[in-house]
Amino acid sequence: MYKATVIVKRRPTILDPEGKAVEQGAKLLGFNNISDTRIGKYIEFYVNSDNIDTVEKEIKEYAEKLLSNPIMEDYEYTFEKVEND
Amino acid sequence: MYKATVIVKRRPTILDPEGKAVEQGAKLLGFNNISDTRIGKYIEFYVNSDNIDTVEKEIKEYAEKLLSNPIMEDYEYTFEKVEND
Repeated sequence: MYKATVIVKRRPTILDPEGKAVEQGAKLLGFNNISDTRIGKYIEFYVNSDNIDTVEKEIKEYAEKLLSNPIMEDYEYTFEKVEND
Repeated sequence: MYKATVIVKRRPTILDPEGKAVEQGAKLLGFNNISDTRIGKYIEFYVNSDNIDTVEKEIKEYAEKLLSNPIMEDYEYTFEKVEND
């Protein structure tokens, strides 16, 4: 069994309205040093296989088909072997 | 100037309906090995100060007051010095 982590970020050229909104809140609270806030997703899951090729293939398919929007987002992933419970 | 990264995750005991929904989609697409999907936030921003204590204090306050919900989420952060543009 493997534990996977996928980070999904909007491409740098794509506007991030959620980041902008949070940053406006920051300015109102007096955080004047903070800029360029961008909010992405951090996803963790387990893949129940011990075949490393299967695991990597499933992580990539999962990331491309369900976790990210390939038109405007990029993703990166890592995974590590863990003991079954 | 520093670049900061904050990861916000729901506490392990808190349900994650978004993760559950995405995982149901995965099952429909035939990903039967994937389990325990949890979706958090991955936030990047810049802090325009060269005083490392100020930077760390602002990152923590920003994370606690705006980026996370302290009742049900935990956060971790890292930061590194970058050259001003």
